[in-house]
Parts: sequence; C-alpha cells; structure tokens
Amino acid sequence: MVQLLKSFIVYDEDCQFPIQNLPYGCFKEGGSTRIGVAIGDMVLDLSKVKHFFDGPALSAHPSVFEESTLNKFMSLGRPAWKEARSTLQRILSDDESVLRDDAALREKALIAMDKVEMVLPAKIGDYTDFYSSRDHATNVGIMFRGKDNALMPNWLHLPVGYHGRASSVVVSGTDIKRPCGQTKPADDKPPQYGPCRLLDFELETAFFVGPGNELGEPISIDNAQDHIFGMVLMNDWSARDIQKWEYVPLGPFLGKNFATTLSPWVVTMDALEEFKLDNWDQSEPTPLPYLQHSDPYVFDINLFVDIKSERSEKTVCESNFKYMYWTMKQQLTHHSISGCNMQPGDLLGSGTISGPEPISFGSMLEQSWKGTKLVDIGNGETRKFIADGDEVKIRGFCQGKGYRVGFGEATGKILPASPLY
Amino acid sequence: MVQLLKSFIVYDEDCQFPIQNLPYGCFKEGGSTRIGVAIGDMVLDLSKVKHFFDGPALSAHPSVFEESTLNKFMSLGRPAWKEARSTLQRILSDDESVLRDDAALREKALIAMDKVEMVLPAKIGDYTDFYSSRDHATNVGIMFRGKDNALMPNWLHLPVGYHGRASSVVVSGTDIKRPCGQTKPADDKPPQYGPCRLLDFELETAFFVGPGNELGEPISIDNAQDHIFGMVLMNDWSARDIQKWEYVPLGPFLGKNFATTLSPWVVTMDALEEFKLDNWDQSEPTPLPYLQHSDPYVFDINLFVDIKSERSEKTVCESNFKYMYWTMKQQLTHHSISGCNMQPGDLLGSGTISGPEPISFGSMLEQSWKGTKLVDIGNGETRKFIADGDEVKIRGFCQGKGYRVGFGEATGKILPASPLY
Ligand SMILES: [Ca+2]
Ligand SMILES: [Ca+2]
Ligand SMILES: [Mg+2]
Ligand SMILES: [Mg+2]
Ligand code: NI
Repeated sequence: MVQLLKSFIVYDEDCQFPIQNLPYGCFKEGGSTRIGVAIGDMVLDLSKVKHFFDGPALSAHPSVFEESTLNKFMSLGRPAWKEARSTLQRILSDDESVLRDDAALREKALIAMDKVEMVLPAKIGDYTDFYSSRDHATNVGIMFRGKDNALMPNWLHLPVGYHGRASSVVVSGTDIKRPCGQTKPADDKPPQYGPCRLLDFELETAFFVGPGNELGEPISIDNAQDHIFGMVLMNDWSARDIQKWEYVPLGPFLGKNFATTLSPWVVTMDALEEFKLDNWDQSEPTPLPYLQHSDPYVFDINLFVDIKSERSEKTVCESNFKYMYWTMKQQLTHHSISGCNMQPGDLLGSGTISGPEPISFGSMLEQSWKGTKLVDIGNGETRKFIADGDEVKIRGFCQGKGYRVGFGEATGKILPASPLY
Repeated sequence: MVQLLKSFIVYDEDCQFPIQNLPYGCFKEGGSTRIGVAIGDMVLDLSKVKHFFDGPALSAHPSVFEESTLNKFMSLGRPAWKEARSTLQRILSDDESVLRDDAALREKALIAMDKVEMVLPAKIGDYTDFYSSRDHATNVGIMFRGKDNALMPNWLHLPVGYHGRASSVVVSGTDIKRPCGQTKPADDKPPQYGPCRLLDFELETAFFVGPGNELGEPISIDNAQDHIFGMVLMNDWSARDIQKWEYVPLGPFLGKNFATTLSPWVVTMDALEEFKLDNWDQSEPTPLPYLQHSDPYVFDINLFVDIKSERSEKTVCESNFKYMYWTMKQQLTHHSISGCNMQPGDLLGSGTISGPEPISFGSMLEQSWKGTKLVDIGNGETRKFIADGDEVKIRGFCQGKGYRVGFGEATGKILPASPLY
C-alpha cells in the first residue's frame, strides 16, 4: 500500500491545501506582492525558498519566483511546472529536513494565510468565456427559444465562446457594485436607465494559459495540454436585464463586463491528474478532427454556490466540473484554430456549469427558472436573483483518498448601485 | 490673416505630418523601442528632446518619454497632452532655434521615417469594437434580415459593441495569414474545417483611452473627452463564413480574432479639433440622458481603402468618419456605464464606417453585396472578397487650409492559409 505523502505542516483530512495540492497564488504582505504556495493554513513565500528550485528547467530562470505575478512561471511550460511541484513536495514533506528543521527559514518563508492579502495570480492579457455545459446551454435555450430549438445548431460542433473584459476580473473578496445600465422592461415601452434588477452569478471555473503561440500558428489538440497551467473558480457575474437588451447581434457586453470574480489559488493540472474521468460521448455528432482527442480530460471537481444574506446562508447549488461537454483542450485548440495568439496568463472560462438536476443549476436564471420560481436561501428567505448585501461564494474541491484538493473560494458581496440620476 | 504655423522641417502641402498634426508613435531603431512624433518624413525621437518638456504637467513625469509605449503618457491626461503639443510646436517651428540651429541635437533626435520600424503605440489591455455607422448596420441588416428589420431594436438607443481580442492587434505592415476555421457551407451539410473563403476587411478608426476610471465609477458624458487620447486607422479583418456559423448567440469570436491592423501614428484629439462637424440628429429617438451631449464630437476625416493585387491597385472605398452616428464620447461613456473600468491604452474601435453611397461602403461584404456583385479592383481584375496576395491599405486625412492632418496607413497583406489537414 502506498504511503500517503505527508507534510510537516499539520492540517486536517478535509483541509483544502494538503501537500497533494500546492496551488500557486500571489499575495501582498509587508509592502510587496510575491508568489506563494498554499499549504495547510500557511502560505509558503517562494521568494524565500527560491534557492531550492535548482533543477534543469528552473535554474535557468532564477528570478521566476521573485516576480509579482505568475505570468513568467506560467510561460516556462510543463517541465518547469513539474520540477517546481516535485521540489515543493520534497521540501514540504515530513521526512525532509531542509525547511522542517530550519526554524529561521520557516519563520521567514511560511506566513499564516490570514495575514496576507491575496491578489490576482496573473496579469490577464485576454479573457475569454466559453459556454460548454450542455445542461446549461439547454436550460437557457428552453427558456428563451423553447424545447425544440434549445441547443443552437453550432453548439454540438464547436465550443461556443466570446471575448470578455480582462480589466474587470477581480480577486475573491472584492465587493461588487450593482451595475447600472440600459434595459427594456417591456416591448412597448422605451428603454430606461437604472440599476440592474436581474443580477446573477454564474458558477464557472477557468484555466490560465501557460506558454502561448505565435499569431497564425494554432495550438493542435495534441499539444493543448502543454499550454494549460491550472484552474481557478470563477463567478461570471451577469446582469440579465442589461444583457437581454444589448446582446443582439454582437453578444454580451455591459451585462458581463462590470466584474468577474476569481479564486486566488491556481490549482495545477498536475494536482488534478488523478481526478480525471472519461470524456463525454461526442459521437452524435463527432466533432471535426481538429477537436478530437481520446485521452480523458474531464475532471471530477465538486462545485458549490452559497448565498449569504444578512440573516441566512445556504448552499443553493451543487454541481461538478464533470458536466462540461467540451474539454479545456478542445476550448483552447478551438480558440487558436483561427491563428489567434494566446499569451501566458490568458484566462479561459468554462461557461456556467450546470448538471441535469435542478440543484446543480449554476445560475439564478436557471435556479429560479427565469424568475418564475423562488429559490430558498435559508431561514425563510427566498430570492429570484441576487439582492444588495448578498454574498455569493463559489467553492470547489476534488475528494482524494484521505485528502482533498481544494480550490478555496471565489466570493463577492453585492453593494447597492450608485445611479447617475 | 493668421500666418500658417510652419516648421523648419521641409514638407509639401499634402504631407500627412505637418506641424499641425504631430502624431505620436513607437518605433524600433538601433536596438531599442522609443516614442516618436512624426514631422514631415522624419521621426522626432522624444527621448532625445525630453529636456524641453519642462511645463508643470510634464516636469512631474520626466521619464514619460523614455518609455517604450505611450501608455504612461496617455495616463497623464489632457493638461500634459496639451503641454507636450505646445512644446513640440514650439521646438519644431521655423522661428525657434533650439532644435533648428543645434545640428548635433538634430542629428540625434531626427530620424528618417524610412529608417525606423514602427510598432504598436501602446500595450493594449482591452480592445472593444463598436458598430456605430448607421449605414453599415443598415446594410448588414438588409442583407441578413431584410429591409423592414434592418436596424435591430436597440441600435438607435445605444452604441452596440463587443469585446474583441487584444493579443492579435498588430501594427500596419504585418502580414496576415488567412485564418482556418469551422464553417457551414450549406444548411443541409455538416460543418467543415478549412481556410476561410470569405475574408474581408472592415474600414474603421479606433481611439486610445487616456486616463482610466475605477471599477464601479462610470465616466460621465461630460468628462468623456478627458479620457480620449487620440485616433488611429483600423482594419478589423473579418472571416465572414467563420463568423456566420459561430456567432449565435454570443457574438463574433474566431471570425475576428485572427488579426486587427492599426496604423502606427496616433493623431491626437487636439490635432483634430478644427475638423469638428455637427453631431448627427439624434432626436428620433433621443438617447437616454447619460448618452446626451450637444457639443460637436464628429470629425471630418476622409477615409480610403485601396486593394492592391499583384497586377492592379485601386481605391475601392471612399468614406468619412463623419458617417458615425454615435460619437466616441458616447461609446466611451456607454462602455463604462456598467462600472467597467477603462485603462490607459485601451482601444475602442468605431465599427465599419460606411456612408450612404456604394463607394463609401467600408467592407467587401457591402461592396459585393454579400457576394452578389463583382468589385472592380482595376486592370480588369475583380473581387467579391479578399484573395491571397492582396494587400489592403486603409488611409485617412483631414484637409485643412494649406495643410493636411494625415493618419498614415493601416496596411496588411494576406498570406495563404496553412491548414492542419
Ligand atoms: Ca459565463
Ligand atoms: Ca468591426
Ligand atoms: Mg464577467
Ligand atoms: Mg479584429
Ligand atoms: Ni501627474
């Protein structure tokens, strides 16, 4: 029987950040922003232990852990990522003394998580959001076009996506002001300006691009994995009433660009490796060859959404990343098939992840079925959409044997709008 | 009679870069990238004359002209921009000796334009494209939805726009590889992969954002002007067949993100000031108050598109920026009304600029009326869309009394596709 890898840092079996996880993030502390790794309830400051990363891939880039973002580390590619993980698992393990028995170094390099402020893990050049959960696309389709035309004709042939707004991607814990905008409440009335009335969350994950590609040189499906660094949780906040009026014919714009919340810790694909599941059956129809891959790249990640008001708190959604029809490899390859150049730190969102059961519906739009049902948020309170003062928390983890690989959380609280007039 | 401001640099009356223009750009020369100003057929290297910028706004930022992009200068705002322009007009004028009579400095600071390589003027954080020419939107509407539903219901109420891809914005002169992608040639046939067959240009301009705004704090229409740095020409290359199959319901994606070409010289709003025209009549319907402004912000900019094949060259389109229904102030204000944060160097495209006459149609889609007509490109050659080897050149200028304020050009040549299989 394989002995479970253990760290000299003590944590529970349900801790999100055991030595099997080791997600990367960027934190502010003592006046500077640095790269860290989560372990138990501590952050390992990589700038203080950089001398341990002396393998062939990383010794060529000695300053990569002195950066204030992960972009450069992301750009180095899988050999460097694997080397870093292996070094981290060694220096944090309970039978290795270099850090365990060096009290001065431990004191410098390990900081309590509640003493740091997390910031975005990367400078995001471009952010794209997909629409890859079949149940979500079907639900939305039924609501707006009826059962017979639920899925658009292209949906099963390609991972539908759109370019999002990179500047308004914020880290978990950032308050979100309810957006104002233009809506058209009734067909026979003129449009009006005012606070969004149908504010929603979207339960998503997203991945960060590692090495990029040159303009005009697509990433093939066989190489896609080498360009995927790791994953975070994402709340793609959505103003449904603004979106509805504006989105024809060029897609979502102000209904999405007021904020997108990310969890701060990037869980690497290596940490997720053992949670792979079989891909969806894509035989009806079979996608075009450029999108075909047979190796599994679906992951068993439990996902949750909690809504917390002043008086109550409840988990309104329990979903799973496995409901994604299109894989991240397919999303990335499709995105670059035109020759579009990806860059280290680019962010690609999954799209709302809904499963077949109502509890797994990843948005209030679906939970309240377009506002026709009340969603119980506990303590006798109900919602159709998100109210001022509500905090929406997205959580997620993979359950291993004796440990969890957790994603932390992507949380945001809604502040009242400030209309211009 | 006011004496025409003259420079000691000699140029013709139809030169694009007289002392009345003074556009900013970034150039590579001698191993570094620096900021320059175009004057005649010379580039003034601002890093060599930075000591002249000693006014109150710029002396606080002495390194702004030692940067390799314009982002920082853009961020300083109008007082700094006006101060820089005034200094430039002084040191370049024919009755000021500081540069004119300093042979050593002239030798260092003035470089022949054909000796430098222009690069993008700014690091573009986010790029957004609008759809603000009424004739263009009407033409496309008639083609795809018929005369009675040509304009979408929202079009006259808000400047429709979408988020584009920032990474693939390239500078004039960059060759563009014909994109491959997924298309659906016939309703009853499955989609297929291959080179785009309906490759198009879009005649556009774009403006760069100066100072940004905080997330959650919209830019009011009264302040919008303070956030607009200057304008460039833009070719929003479009793969019509890819776009047609992919764009429902989330908008253009791979049909647009393979490349967007910019002219390298940013013409400032101060240089355009005297080419203002009255705004369009927006009384049917009147837009909501947040979009209303009465001061003119439409500009008389002559725009042209030339297509050059191996055998021929012809100006296929003569349009004008004045055909824009929505102003840049309205576009910027609308973009931020949700609270979306703009950043210095963000790029906002006009949308295809078509006027009422066929000669002014700013895309092959319109010129060939969806491929139903042949477009004469000279010397007996015709096109419906753009062929491999074709070079598309967008040009533009404002005609002053005795001088021109030119935009230079946004040029790109189409290289053959390289399909995966
Ligand atoms: Ca989404
Ligand atoms: Ca366009
Ligand atoms: Mg968003
Ligand atoms: Mg483009
Ligand atoms: Ni200042």
